[in-house]
Order: sequence, then structure tokens, then C-alpha cells
Amino acid sequence: MQLFYSKEITETGYATLDTEESRHAVRVLRMREGDELHVTDGCGHLYRCAIVAADASACVVETLLEVTPPADTPRCRLHLAVAPTKNPSRMEWLVEKAVEVGIDELTLLDCDHSERSFLKTDRLERIALSAMKQSLHLSLPRINPAIALQEWMESGEGRAEKAGAVTQKFIAHCEAGQPRTPLDEALLPGHDAVVLIGPEGDFSEEEIQLALRQGFQPVSLGPSRLRTETAALYAAVAFSVKNEE
Amino acid sequence: MQLFYSKEITETGYATLDTEESRHAVRVLRMREGDELHVTDGCGHLYRCAIVAADASACVVETLLEVTPPADTPRCRLHLAVAPTKNPSRMEWLVEKAVEVGIDELTLLDCDHSERSFLKTDRLERIALSAMKQSLHLSLPRINPAIALQEWMESGEGRAEKAGAVTQKFIAHCEAGQPRTPLDEALLPGHDAVVLIGPEGDFSEEEIQLALRQGFQPVSLGPSRLRTETAALYAAVAFSVKNEE
Repeated sequence: MQLFYSKEITETGYATLDTEESRHAVRVLRMREGDELHVTDGCGHLYRCAIVAADASACVVETLLEVTPPADTPRCRLHLAVAPTKNPSRMEWLVEKAVEVGIDELTLLDCDHSERSFLKTDRLERIALSAMKQSLHLSLPRINPAIALQEWMESGEGRAEKAGAVTQKFIAHCEAGQPRTPLDEALLPGHDAVVLIGPEGDFSEEEIQLALRQGFQPVSLGPSRLRTETAALYAAVAFSVKNEE
Repeated sequence: MQLFYSKEITETGYATLDTEESRHAVRVLRMREGDELHVTDGCGHLYRCAIVAADASACVVETLLEVTPPADTPRCRLHLAVAPTKNPSRMEWLVEKAVEVGIDELTLLDCDHSERSFLKTDRLERIALSAMKQSLHLSLPRINPAIALQEWMESGEGRAEKAGAVTQKFIAHCEAGQPRTPLDEALLPGHDAVVLIGPEGDFSEEEIQLALRQGFQPVSLGPSRLRTETAALYAAVAFSVKNEE
């Protein structure tokens, strides 16, 4: 199945695919008027549509019916807050893989030990969109631009919270001196989660203390020393495994 | 801690680091005679050594003592058998990440639906070595060159077997029609495992039947449609999580 994306798509009426999606449908796949395709709004909905104007830069589609979302839509939300790596390609890789495995939100964290690197979130958003389509997810994860850890803590690290549900909050630091629970043990199935992943130089002592005061549980991610992006994906897979049942 | 690698290193006597390791120690880190460093033989041993000849192309070190291996050495062995992706960089990425998380052996599988691509195992071996050092593992995973699935099945997919221990064998195919258990449920802690990951076009029906006859259990890897390399890493993380305790 080939999945298309349009912010505008609804259960009735018409929508115009953006340039890239239009080009893909009309130029690459050579679709014509009357051809049917599946379009998601990136908010959990999937529609079967028909092309009414096969324009390679502004393809217009009409919704035929809403398709019941497949069971793959995640019941629990995972929000990763990650200190960007110095090498942007490692973060781009993380976004692709984490979206395939299934996350709902990614926040770039400026930490005390961060190697400042200006990451274009629009590029990460494009990668997230194509990974969403590739893995047939119907929810487009939100990518939040870099924010200082302290500011983020104060402003609302609870963004992943779902009304009524308790969100588990974790910080995966590497301070061997301090007690940490394996993430897998700490995770409760059926709950949203926020996981903080630090920079190569780890979180500073102040950042760890701040997180603990804010109710974040310290967790470990397996026995190995993992790179930042590997640690973040490890957390995403552990969350997926825990909520698979 | 900075970890070096030498096939030759033993608990006593001298060893010469290869060109790359020598250059790294002497040129990059500017180490001199008498400086101490940690060297692993890639077979689970770690030694504290001193440089006796700071030669940038053939650095000679003397073993001072064997350091007790850290607890991070994996107790159970994981062998991934993966159909190489068309794009070699995706396999290189997989090797780096899987070695970080912790695998023991990787076999490249030629499957009926494989996009033939000639992968240089020596390049994958270099990536595995640097990932081993990066993640402070003391065992260098073995990378086996491409082999046809059928031939591999007949010759010995049990290479990961440890004397006395039962190796669990899994095939992660995508045939929705057939019953599959989530890998996490099928995995028993404390057992070696072999996991087969198919090409983009999945295993052929014949390959799946062959594997089932050979005692491979069909498993699923989460609710999402994953790329080959993502599926393989998903399996590695699930195995690590299961054997973390």
C-alpha cells in the first residue's frame, strides 16, 4: 500500500495534495483522474480517495470514505527529548528510525554539555513525514525545536500528556554513582512516557537533580555505552515492546 | 576510557598494535613510551598495558595485568542473519548500531527476494571494530559474508550455539496470513538466539516453509512496518532488554 499525506484531508469533500505529494502521485506513480489512493491527515485518520485533477504540482483528490484506522495506531504516546548530536546526520537517522518504530513527539534539548548544533526542524519534519508514510503510521510525530533543558522543564515537559492518563517521566543519565532502574522495568504498559536522553557528555549534575526534583525517574538503557541517537532509539524500541501486547 | 584492540594481546609479554590503532595512540592521542592504555583482544579480555615503543605505524605495548572484564560482557549470544539492503549505508548503519547494543554474530543472507548487492565484509568489520571500542565491549562480533538462505540453513545456522545451551531460532517474516508471536514473548531470557530478518520484499513462501521445517519460530517485531535494518536493530534491542536483568 502506498500512503499519501495531506493536512487538508477530511471525511468529505476535496483536498489538494502539496507539491511533493502531487508530483509523487502524478509524475512518479503516473496516477490519473479516477485512480484511487489512500491519504492520511497525520492525525490518525485514513481515507480512501479518488483523484479528480491529476495535476503534478497540485493534485486534487476527493474523499470516498474513511477507512477504519488499522490496529497499528499506538495507544500510548512516547515523547523523546534528546540533546542533538554534533553530527546532524545522526539526528536525522534517529528521526527516521524512531518514527518507523513509533514515537509521537521529539523535542531537541539544549543541555549544559551539548555541542551546540543548529538543526533545521523542517528537514527533520520532512524525514518524519516520509518515515511515517514508509511505516504506514497515520500520526505525524511532532518535532519541537531546540529548547534549553531548564526552560523546557519549567514550561511543560508534560506536553505528551493525554487527558486522564498519567505520563511516566524518565531521565536516562549515565552517572554510574547514582541508582537507576532499567527502563524496561520502570515502564508500565498502557501509560504515556517522556524519556530524556542526554548529550555525548551526559547531563550535568544540576540537570539530573532538576529532573529528579521534577519527578523524572532515573533509568538505564542496557549494559552498553550507547551513543545519544542509539540510546534514544533503544528507548523507543523498549517502549514499543512494552506496549505491544 | 579509551579502548584499543589487538588480536595479539595476551596476559603476558608484548604485542604490536596494527597501523590504525598505532596511529590513533601515537599521532592522535600523542601517547609516549611508558603511557598506559587499555587493550582488548576482542574475545572478552581486557588488559592494562604500557607503551614500550611509541611507533605511529607499529606501536608496541607490554601487558601489565589483565583487568577483570566489566559486567557488561553479554551472557547470551545473539546472531542476526539479515538480507542486505540495496543501499549499503543502511547495512553499515545497522552494524554500528547493533554492535553498540550488543550482538555476537551477523550473517548476510541472500534471499529469493534480495536486491543483490555486494557488500564488503571488511568494511563492515572495520565499522564493527570501532563500534565495539566506542561502546566498550570486549567481544568483536563476527561478520559472515553473504550466503544463500538455503545453503546457510543446511550448513549451520546454529553457529551461535553455545555448548550445552539451547539456541532459540526465529524468523521475522511479514506474512500477515500466518500466525506469529511477538519476539518479546517468544524470547526466553538466558538463551542464545538466532533471528532471521528478510529483504524489503520479505522472505519467499518457500523460504518461510524451509525455516519452519528447520525449527525456526515465526515472530513479529512490533505493530509497524519496519525497514530491514530497523527490524534487525529492533530484534537486537528486544534481546538486550530481555537479558538485561
